[in-house]
Amino acid sequence: MTIPALAITMGDPAGVGPEIITKGLNREEIRGRFRPLIIGSERALVRAFSYTGTHFSYTKINPDMKEIGSWEGIALLSDESRLGEEIPVGQIDPTCGASAFIWLDRAIRLALEKRVIGIVTAPLHKEALNQAGYHYAGHTEILAEKTGTEEYCLMLSAGNFRVAHVTCHVPLSKVSDLLTQERIVTAIRLFDEALTRMDGKRPRIAVCAFNPHSGEGGLFGVEESRAIRPAVKQSQEQGIQAEGPFPCDSIFPQHVGGRFDGVIAMYHDQGHIAFKLNNFQFDPKTQEWSEVTGVNTTLGLPIVRTSVDHGTAFDLAGTGKASERSLLDAIKAAVQLGGLDA
Amino acid sequence: MTIPALAITMGDPAGVGPEIITKGLNREEIRGRFRPLIIGSERALVRAFSYTGTHFSYTKINPDMKEIGSWEGIALLSDESRLGEEIPVGQIDPTCGASAFIWLDRAIRLALEKRVIGIVTAPLHKEALNQAGYHYAGHTEILAEKTGTEEYCLMLSAGNFRVAHVTCHVPLSKVSDLLTQERIVTAIRLFDEALTRMDGKRPRIAVCAFNPHSGEGGLFGVEESRAIRPAVKQSQEQGIQAEGPFPCDSIFPQHVGGRFDGVIAMYHDQGHIAFKLNNFQFDPKTQEWSEVTGVNTTLGLPIVRTSVDHGTAFDLAGTGKASERSLLDAIKAAVQLGGLDA
Repeated sequence: MTIPALAITMGDPAGVGPEIITKGLNREEIRGRFRPLIIGSERALVRAFSYTGTHFSYTKINPDMKEIGSWEGIALLSDESRLGEEIPVGQIDPTCGASAFIWLDRAIRLALEKRVIGIVTAPLHKEALNQAGYHYAGHTEILAEKTGTEEYCLMLSAGNFRVAHVTCHVPLSKVSDLLTQERIVTAIRLFDEALTRMDGKRPRIAVCAFNPHSGEGGLFGVEESRAIRPAVKQSQEQGIQAEGPFPCDSIFPQHVGGRFDGVIAMYHDQGHIAFKLNNFQFDPKTQEWSEVTGVNTTLGLPIVRTSVDHGTAFDLAGTGKASERSLLDAIKAAVQLGGLDA
Repeated sequence: MTIPALAITMGDPAGVGPEIITKGLNREEIRGRFRPLIIGSERALVRAFSYTGTHFSYTKINPDMKEIGSWEGIALLSDESRLGEEIPVGQIDPTCGASAFIWLDRAIRLALEKRVIGIVTAPLHKEALNQAGYHYAGHTEILAEKTGTEEYCLMLSAGNFRVAHVTCHVPLSKVSDLLTQERIVTAIRLFDEALTRMDGKRPRIAVCAFNPHSGEGGLFGVEESRAIRPAVKQSQEQGIQAEGPFPCDSIFPQHVGGRFDGVIAMYHDQGHIAFKLNNFQFDPKTQEWSEVTGVNTTLGLPIVRTSVDHGTAFDLAGTGKASERSLLDAIKAAVQLGGLDA
């Protein structure tokens, strides 16, 4: 049997994407279960080898992708058509934003054609993307549009800590209007499906309230009675082990303590504050990030897609210091969600 | 010199308040710097001695408070005028709610008259309070009203982790309208004053954004540009070391890592999610809370007031199991804020 291919997009080539790819694909722990197909720039990759002091050999794949299926080990699909003569380091640049976009677009098409089992994305820079004329809030919105997906949901995961978001990249003042029973039910269903696949059993899901003290019986808001409680009830009727709404400040320590297998957050920061506090570490001595773990998965797409849970880290670009940890976790999650886990 | 008195209100007598007081006031670590004045019910106190297997002797003080200043050790001001024949355990009851209210009211008057240096409150139950006809969101709102305070701010603290809230017990959908430059400047000022008193030096304060990604340049909301950024600037002009607005999901790990001495949150859960995840622990084996630390301080009042950072815990009431840790921390913080720290 041919080992399946997994696309890994380079993201913004001025950021740490190329460096974490050179460090990550050298690691033994991810070998053998898939064939990596890097989609990005050969010049950026070679430069990253020198930044990180690493090296691996790779097969070059033509953009027409005819060779797909034929290489062994690591392959590179390099498309530098949108890059200038110099690739900047750690700077916002529209040629980098445009390149990140076309690489992602190519990966999506390959995944839709089932020529790769999924996509793992390195970070892009939103402003570079915008300067290049691509007006999206981020990867997720591009993926949703290009795959014609209307119902999707961002999940963050690191080990047993998993949180999915009913709403995400919108002003906080708009969230209340977006919290419909239907949207919450969909998020719970997508989360239940993903965790069932990841854990091999149906999960216990905690659903966050929107307001402080879970609305305090209506005194502090009505979203709980109007949408969240009915959504939990409807999900339970569908056989999902969902509970809530719970006051969100006390549910995350309970998740860490194993009472639930995952938490549904109503808005971006509700889930992200807890996730990053639990999984990121800022070193008191160096005053730098010392640990940045986590995988960002888009649930609801017709394709598997995971991502690192950090940005382009322009301040680290070119130093070789960026950690490949999150990329490795994202690759493992994609392999798991793609059904390749042994 | 006479050692100053500190009022400790019993809170809802059907909750764990009486038990944590009996356990806490026996502890050596808080002895000698103040004379505790428990304000509550003698029957509830005696019952709590039996629940917790502890005991201490106390001087009974008449409700007219004439003796204040004359006792040594621990004193009790017992007022059972609103209680029934039986004091329930772990149940919502209006006689308990009414009692918690009048005990707090008495403590506030003593503090305003400077007959005690401050108030430490054990938890009350909001529904019992409401059933008794007292319609307040909680302790803080009663304290603000009874002291004629318009500008106040809830701070949570545990060791070096400190977060203050610009808004608190309101529906999340109302927060945007409440976030005025003036209100944010006030919260920053009150926080700066409190941390300066607690640390003996001016603090470095991180100010949270309201929207995801700090508003992403206006794409995800305008509260940052409309109110938060101008408030940070105004505070800086007043000599306060405030910075921000920062995306709130990445600022809390940096606070833990020592980059800032405290964080200003824009709404209840923004601060509370981080605080509880950092300071509460849910035991994976027993599936119960094993650690609940933290002090709740109301900044901006003309009197010192701190509180435990947990509720009445009706499920634990009567078992003697509730931890006195948070009460001890609240007492120490009150002593510190009251200027009694050696």
